[in-house]
Amino acid sequence: MSGSMSGAARHQSVFDGWTARLFAGDRRALARAITAVENETTEAPAVLAAIHPRLGRARIVGFTGAPGAGKSTLVNAYIKELRRRGRTVGVVAVDPSSPISGGAILGDRIRMADHAGDPGVFVRSLAARGHLGGLSRTAARVIDVMDAAGRDYVVVETVGTGQSEVEIADLAHTKVVVCAPGLGDGIQAVKAGILEIADVLVVNKGDLPLAAAAANQLTEAARLNAGGTRPVPVLTTVATTGEGVAALAEAVEAHLAEGGGPRMAPLQRARRLVAALAAQRLKRRLAEAADPRLDALCQSALRGEIGFDEAAARALELLAGGGR
Amino acid sequence: MSGSMSGAARHQSVFDGWTARLFAGDRRALARAITAVENETTEAPAVLAAIHPRLGRARIVGFTGAPGAGKSTLVNAYIKELRRRGRTVGVVAVDPSSPISGGAILGDRIRMADHAGDPGVFVRSLAARGHLGGLSRTAARVIDVMDAAGRDYVVVETVGTGQSEVEIADLAHTKVVVCAPGLGDGIQAVKAGILEIADVLVVNKGDLPLAAAAANQLTEAARLNAGGTRPVPVLTTVATTGEGVAALAEAVEAHLAEGGGPRMAPLQRARRLVAALAAQRLKRRLAEAADPRLDALCQSALRGEIGFDEAAARALELLAGGGR
Repeated sequence: MSGSMSGAARHQSVFDGWTARLFAGDRRALARAITAVENETTEAPAVLAAIHPRLGRARIVGFTGAPGAGKSTLVNAYIKELRRRGRTVGVVAVDPSSPISGGAILGDRIRMADHAGDPGVFVRSLAARGHLGGLSRTAARVIDVMDAAGRDYVVVETVGTGQSEVEIADLAHTKVVVCAPGLGDGIQAVKAGILEIADVLVVNKGDLPLAAAAANQLTEAARLNAGGTRPVPVLTTVATTGEGVAALAEAVEAHLAEGGGPRMAPLQRARRLVAALAAQRLKRRLAEAADPRLDALCQSALRGEIGFDEAAARALELLAGGGR
Repeated sequence: MSGSMSGAARHQSVFDGWTARLFAGDRRALARAITAVENETTEAPAVLAAIHPRLGRARIVGFTGAPGAGKSTLVNAYIKELRRRGRTVGVVAVDPSSPISGGAILGDRIRMADHAGDPGVFVRSLAARGHLGGLSRTAARVIDVMDAAGRDYVVVETVGTGQSEVEIADLAHTKVVVCAPGLGDGIQAVKAGILEIADVLVVNKGDLPLAAAAANQLTEAARLNAGGTRPVPVLTTVATTGEGVAALAEAVEAHLAEGGGPRMAPLQRARRLVAALAAQRLKRRLAEAADPRLDALCQSALRGEIGFDEAAARALELLAGGGR
């Protein structure tokens, strides 16, 4: 039979072979599938079509926070805890620093060292692509591949600044925000707006003198912010020793279980991403447009004849109606 | 004549009186005008109409950075330097923390203490309004009032995380990003994406042991990021002693002078803000929409039949064409 097989059919057969290995949990197949979607190779469409029916099983946990909070160390400790519980883990480390650090590769090496030889942990770092939304788009695809490959958990680690990371955090079912006492007190953390995006708040470096004070401030802030509803839990960890990490895993489980609503389906995730990318397009288009009607709206807003909100609503109408 | 004056005319006359004082630099008139636009009182439209012809003279300098970098102290030192040069200053401190800290009022008090009795410095802190874009909208108005009131410089201080602050930074002619050596090394700072938004990079707390290393790393990162063009300048300051602050002021002047393009006109600023607000509206609308055509696009993207970019472009078309 192999003698009569056409080239295309043979290619298909080879492909079927390695996607079968992908779904069986084979690491090399997983690496190949991720590379395909990350680099948008000719194999990418076939990979995406193959994984599509298998999406939606993995729990996606996002970690974010300011540089210096010990986030990577905590993610490593959390992964160890998940492994102790018998879960398989995929890790997507989002690192918008490619121009200088070669951070993607370096990051993989550092992180892999901790889990080297453990087939239950698969790490991939992603570097920025230099265009708007490129990173969140790639991250969404890589998360999907890990999900389809049967990883129980996909842990997404992002650096907590800038727009694209906020959107990447949106892809997670549960968002953990990591603070450190040395990085300013609870008030400072609250100023940074993290209460709005966190499902679980962690004060890492809990062995530092100011940790308890920071945790107290954050707890109080979370209580006030919740305004009578259940506040975001605040935990203290020492990532380097593993202290508090089991409690963190429990808090994540609790949030996943209650869900803050049902767990986000792949379609809903895709819709958020498409909405974010469309919004970026619109923003660019409007900011660069030389449309006298838009300028008239802006002048009206500057003169106080209409509010900026009203101007924005009318700008959207301009686009929608072509000038009604 | 006053006996025959109608109520409306009298109101107008009183208003003319205090806007005249506003333009003459009167602090109480400035406070009243800012309160009007901040709280959107019935006086707000008249204030905005009155200031409109006087916009575009102030230099707007934005300071951002992670909590704990000593940003507020540096802003204070920079203000002192501007005063030493005979410039008048308005300060807009953006603080998305209102639910707990009462941060706005507290912030004003702390900052005012340093410049108490100096009519050349006027500080206003803004608290978040709890809805998307509320803060950037308010900040834009308050900057305009300070501009029209004749402040030579308007300094905008924001906490460096989250989307709305990125937009507020967009309102400035020159953006200063403040780092501290204790907050992670240069690579970490680069990971946070700050090279993309900074016009001037500052390593504050320059008396700490790791400051020189951090500055070297950032300088190298900036050089590589610039790819042959002129890199973003990297400066070291000790805000608590004032060391390096004059050099910072010079770097800001140099950027304002060369402009990275011409100084942004009020219309251009308004257009950016309207574009950002319209994009937020669109994002919300698309993410919440129950539109089967949008869901079909997202399914196509998930299956890899089209890219997420393509899906986003078509989603915009859906909106624009009403379904063509």
